[in-house]
This record gives sequence, C-alpha cells and structure tokens, in this order.
Amino acid sequence: MAKPVAIGLFGLGNIGSGLVSLLQERRKGIRDSTGLSISIKAICVKDTGKQRDAALSLEGIRITGDPQAIVQDPDIDVAVELMGGVEPASEMIIKALQHKKPVVTANKAALAAKGDEIFTAASSNGVGIFFEAAVCGSIPIIRVLQESLASDSIQAMFGIINGTTNYILTKMTFDSKEYDAALKEAQKLGFAEPDPAFDVLGNDAAQKLSILASLGFQSRFAEKDVSTEGISSIKKKDIQYADRLGYRIKLLASAKRCRGVENTVSLRVAPTLIPKQHLLSGVLNELNAIFLVGKYVGEQMYYGKGAGQYPTAAAVLSDVIFAAQHLTDAPFPFRNPFLGSKEIQDPLDGVSRFYLRCIVLDKPGVLAKIAGVLGTHGVSIASFTQEERSASGPVPIVLTTHEVSERQIHDAIKEIDALDVVKEKAVSLRIEDFS
Amino acid sequence: MAKPVAIGLFGLGNIGSGLVSLLQERRKGIRDSTGLSISIKAICVKDTGKQRDAALSLEGIRITGDPQAIVQDPDIDVAVELMGGVEPASEMIIKALQHKKPVVTANKAALAAKGDEIFTAASSNGVGIFFEAAVCGSIPIIRVLQESLASDSIQAMFGIINGTTNYILTKMTFDSKEYDAALKEAQKLGFAEPDPAFDVLGNDAAQKLSILASLGFQSRFAEKDVSTEGISSIKKKDIQYADRLGYRIKLLASAKRCRGVENTVSLRVAPTLIPKQHLLSGVLNELNAIFLVGKYVGEQMYYGKGAGQYPTAAAVLSDVIFAAQHLTDAPFPFRNPFLGSKEIQDPLDGVSRFYLRCIVLDKPGVLAKIAGVLGTHGVSIASFTQEERSASGPVPIVLTTHEVSERQIHDAIKEIDALDVVKEKAVSLRIEDFS
Repeated sequence: MAKPVAIGLFGLGNIGSGLVSLLQERRKGIRDSTGLSISIKAICVKDTGKQRDAALSLEGIRITGDPQAIVQDPDIDVAVELMGGVEPASEMIIKALQHKKPVVTANKAALAAKGDEIFTAASSNGVGIFFEAAVCGSIPIIRVLQESLASDSIQAMFGIINGTTNYILTKMTFDSKEYDAALKEAQKLGFAEPDPAFDVLGNDAAQKLSILASLGFQSRFAEKDVSTEGISSIKKKDIQYADRLGYRIKLLASAKRCRGVENTVSLRVAPTLIPKQHLLSGVLNELNAIFLVGKYVGEQMYYGKGAGQYPTAAAVLSDVIFAAQHLTDAPFPFRNPFLGSKEIQDPLDGVSRFYLRCIVLDKPGVLAKIAGVLGTHGVSIASFTQEERSASGPVPIVLTTHEVSERQIHDAIKEIDALDVVKEKAVSLRIEDFS
Repeated sequence: MAKPVAIGLFGLGNIGSGLVSLLQERRKGIRDSTGLSISIKAICVKDTGKQRDAALSLEGIRITGDPQAIVQDPDIDVAVELMGGVEPASEMIIKALQHKKPVVTANKAALAAKGDEIFTAASSNGVGIFFEAAVCGSIPIIRVLQESLASDSIQAMFGIINGTTNYILTKMTFDSKEYDAALKEAQKLGFAEPDPAFDVLGNDAAQKLSILASLGFQSRFAEKDVSTEGISSIKKKDIQYADRLGYRIKLLASAKRCRGVENTVSLRVAPTLIPKQHLLSGVLNELNAIFLVGKYVGEQMYYGKGAGQYPTAAAVLSDVIFAAQHLTDAPFPFRNPFLGSKEIQDPLDGVSRFYLRCIVLDKPGVLAKIAGVLGTHGVSIASFTQEERSASGPVPIVLTTHEVSERQIHDAIKEIDALDVVKEKAVSLRIEDFS
C-alpha cells in the first residue's frame, strides 16, 4: 500500500515546471522504491491567467493565486517553495512552517537573507526545512554536511560553486579566450545572465559559501562575512603563466578553521591558483564540486551539476521524499544550525602563497628594486621568471612567494606600483596548495 | 536537554577501538550539533580476558562475552556490529533487529552473503539497518543512493572502489614499478593483506559493486553476478602504452543499464583504460571514488577514503547518529532494496572499445595476418602502433578497436594467439569512454 503525499507548490517557473514533469515521469519508480505516492495538489502562482507551456500537464492540479489555499489546506503534507527572491518567498516559507508543514525550498537568496527567521520557525514548530537544491543544485552537500559528516569535525571546505565563472575560466584556459569573449559565449549558452554581475563578482559563490560554512562549522555566517573577489579582471596571460607554473586559475570558495586561533574561521571567494594535479582542477565548464577535509574522514570531494532545470528539480524532489518519510507526529529532529558563533578572520591576516605579475621596463636594476621592496615587507620569493622581451619595451616578471599574509602582499604591491620602472598595476593572486 | 543514546557494540578490533576513541573525542561536539548524548554501554567481545591497548579508555563500559547482554538489554538503543566475517556477525545483526533495535554495521561480507535475511528482518521488525561503512568507508554513497538519488533513475555507476589495487596501479603508473614490487610496497604500508588475493583478484570490488548496484537499480545482485577480473597480470608496459594513447589503467567497477535491453544490467569489475582527463583518472593511491550518471541529475562523483580506522569509524558513528534521530515509535520508513529482479547481461555480450597488445615476429605480412583475423570477427581497428624494434626479435603491436562485443574480441584473440608469428598470448583490456 503506497502512502499518499500531497505537495503544495509555490511558483511555476523553470524549476517548478521541471518538478511537475519530473514527478510525472518518476511517480511509479518512486512509489516502487520508497512506498510513497507523491502528487502535486495545488500550485500558487502570481498570475493565474498566464499561458503555460502546452507540454506541461497540470491535470488534477489546482492553480491558485492565494497562498492560504496551500498554507491552510490540511490535506497538503509538504510545501515546496520555488518562487525565488527574498520576498514574498520567505513569508510563504515561514507561514507554511507555522502551519506545521515541512518546507522544501531551492531559494538561496531567502536563506541567505532570512535564514535566522526561517530556521527558528522550523525548530519552534518542530517541522523540517529542507534546502538541498538551494546550494550546488544536484550535489547533495547539504544532506552530507547535516548527516554523513555529523560525526566528524570539518577542518576546511574548498568549492568551485559557481557554474558561470567556472565556465568562463574553462573557456579562457582551454580555448585561449579573453574574459569578454568567454563571458559572451557563456551568455549565449545560458550559463551567464544578461547582467552577469552577481555571478562574476563572486556574490553568488559567497552566498553559497556562507550557507555551507554555517552548516559545516555550526555557526551563523552571512554573505558579508565572506571576503569576496570576482574574476572580471583575470587576463588570459595570467592563466597562461599559471599553466606554465603547474596551476589552473579557478574561482575558489574556501572556508577554513584558522590554525592556532581557537574558534576563528576564514571565509573567502577569490580567483586562485590550484595545482593542476588536484582533483578540483579537473572540474570543468559549468560543473561544481566541493572538496573538504574532515578531522577523521580525511579528504572528500562531491562533484556534479550545480544548476539546471532537471538537476535542481531532482534535488527538490529528493527533499520532498525525505520530508514525506518523516511525516510523523514526533517532532522532526531538527537543530538550528545557525546558533553557534565563531569569529571571522580579518582577510588581511589570511596567510597563503601568492602569484605576482609585474610589467616592468627592461632595464638593469629593475629586478633588484622589486626584490628589495618584497624583502622589506618580509615577502620571500619561491620562484621567479622573466621572459625575454621580443622587442624593446616593457616585459613581464612573474613570481611566486612563500607563505605571507595578504597584508604584507598588499603593502608590498602598493610600493611596487609606485616604482617608476613599473608600467602596469601588479596583479596578485592567491595560491592554494591544500596542505 | 540532550537526549541520551546507548550503544551496544559487537567487536572491539581496529574499527571498534576507533569508534570508542572517536566517540570520546567528539561526544561534546555531537551533543552541541545534534542534541544527542551518545555513549557505549556494553561491548561484546570473543575474549573478555584479552589485554587491550592501554590508551583505549573503556571506563564505564561493560565488557561481556554474552551477546544476549546487548540484544536483550532494553536500555540499549542502537546495536553496532563490527565483528567482521559472515558468522556469527549475521546472527547478531538479525537477533538485534528481532529485538527491535536498529543496527549499524560495517560488515560487507555479511551483507553480501546474508543481505536478504538481514533486510527482511529489518523490514519485518520495522527498524532500520544502516551500513554506510560497509562500502567505500567514509564516502556516504549508501545514504546518497538511498536518499538523495531516490528521486532519480540511475543509468550507470563507475567506481574505483578497492584501495589496494588502486594503490598498486598508481605506483606502477607513476613510479614505474612492476606489479610484484608495487604489491610488496602496498603490503609494507598496510594497504594490502599478506594474502592479497581477495583484493587483487577483484572480489572485494565485486562484493561492493553488488551492494551498490542493488541499491542503485533496486534489485538483488550478488557477488557472483559480477563479471570479475583482477589486476595481477597487468604489466608495466601496458600501463605505458596506455599512457601514450591518453589513458590510465584502473580497476574499474561498473554497473550499467543495458541500452535497448529493458530491465537488464551489466555488472563488471575489470582493469580498464580510462581517459586521462576523466575525473576518475585523478583518483590516486588508496583513495576511492564513485562516478555515476542519473537520468535527471546528470553526472556526479563522490570521492574519499575507502578504508582506515577513523574514516570507517566516522561513517559508523554518522549512521549511529542517524539511527538515534529516528528512534520513534513509528516504524522506520525502510524498504528492502533487494526486492526487485533484473536480468544480468552475459558478459560476452558487453560491448566496448578494446586495447589489444600482441608480441609478434618482425616479418613482412604479420600485420596483414592480425588485421585479417580481426576483420573476420568484425573487429574494426581505431588506432594502431608498431614500435621500431631495437634489435632483431619480437616486437609489440598495440592497437585500439572501435566498439565490439567481448565475444568478438575473445574469438579473435583465440585465433591470433594460434598464429605462428605471434610469440606471446595477446593482452586485451576494455576502454571506457563514459559516453
């Protein structure tokens, strides 16, 4: 005997339509494997008169403009929020929770902005809030952090968690494109928005990282806690120099416990050089991955599609299944993961190796000047290359440093940029060796 | 208020001791993040008089030789079986389930041999059986298959799921060792047993694959359903030829739905050439990974440590936490994943590209003879190399084929081996292009 489960859905856009179709295709398979007979009872939309895709079968589903029709219907077991945006989505989520309905959402923005209220509503009403699809689409990293790694103590997480920027950097690396051309291609293929700022400036990755870090370190972090730098100033030539040094440039999101500083973490999104032989270097195009280090499990990686209609709808549906399996009178064993409080390290105190590129005049004594400035700031050089110039004119100097703080690098660069032999602002990028 | 959870443990070997230590170190952290106060109440061991590691704190834990002391103790909430071996472990697992205690086990052998009885006992008693640690140690692939991918339809799974063979092949590839030397090194480091047969012949991987495929395809598969070939006859030179062709040789476990043949799957463990740029090629040393393709989520990969005291203990403990969070009067929503039945493809019908190496006399007409035999069997050549011989004597011919069935290749090789110009038995290995 299959157990009937009725969904009330908010929103019928791209992901919502995907969920409707996916559920139609997979209903029998899910019934066979889980014993649940899941159907959508009602969908709340902004415009009930809007023409929908003819291929989308909405038979037997009530389409309504009234959120109360979902929130107050005692026959609806699980509310699914796929409206997007902070409001009114957050309000719908909280109302459903207050009516003791477990909620599944794919809404990263709502969680980033109203996470506290949402999680408090869930725990005070004893029902679950599920949001696998809100971070990295089909990769089940939320469930993994909440369940599988509950026994461990996470030391660090590194992610390629923005598909747009990973696609652009992949094209710059393998098709030798400059940033603008690669962005245009990404836009043409739908991997970048017409206004790409939210992705390319690193904000999307920062929002995701704040949620992952909150779960991984059991503390409340917001987007503003993440030191964020985008990829729009990355040049093809830096990707090529990095390649020769054995590195790829990726927009890396990282959350680490600071060594030797109790209760402090560093949170950062920045274009970063990572060794070519590291698994994360093999994460190409629009794909996502999270590489993490647990004190006991050691290193792990989770890889998959971070977006897309069906991958996201599948993550939503797996949350619905999980929620439906936990529809008991016993309160859902849910803890607000955002209760702890940890310190955020000042980004300038963050220590790493750096890649540095300067464009200088090809004159005697230039290298000595630059090396002198670096030495003054305690920056020690690990490797150094100066290319032979093809004609008279400026030449690039590329060097890597040993571990220094970002403060030291910033101070040194400020002084280097002021040298009269330097022709362009120096470029500095972090190197992550995962050690 | 933390909720107390008492564990009854069977077995105090390497993993059992790891669990005791891990729980001591993480008790407070787990209480803070989950609200559960977990402790071990009793441990059932074979020899109660045995001297234990002095560093292991067993204070407050009852050490007993009587399994009934765990099974019948109403104060024990969760039974954990870490004895290993099929019996008496399976008996203990089933007894505990019959006493309505959820069971956590790391015992792959017991599940492979007695899975039916164990899962039946779990579902008929309405309690859960959890076995994340039994397959691929710390990688949460069991939970992922049972929960996160419940919404999807898995098309194929590919795994590097045996650490011993992956370590040996890694050393053969990067340190240019022959098999025997690499095996010896693996044994010295504890990555291979003194008798390595179970690992190097592919049986361990086949047992794991049978469990993964059972969950992924909701059907009952056993080790004997897996076409299994080990790595002991792999030569360094084949690894080198593969390298020049752009491939690495890995012991690949694969489970695929057969295209165009309803309800039929192929299950195989075999040394296989995989493209160097594929993520699985970057899984080195003793590490494990499962790469899978879902109809809706697309491709995913899960990577981590497949064995080891703490990684395995951490997986056991996360199962304990999950079991403890579901200690309600409501029956655990558990379905026997081994109920379905699917056909197993005859391995000889399996189609793929192949790598072929023959050692032949360097005489006119030799190539024509070999090509002729291949042609007779419908095997079409995709690439071909013959090295210049360094002196008179036999020379290697290395070729790759287009897609053919294993039957065709076997028949062709039988005929090639009988040619008088062929000096050694031909070597054939499958090529997996993941297409």
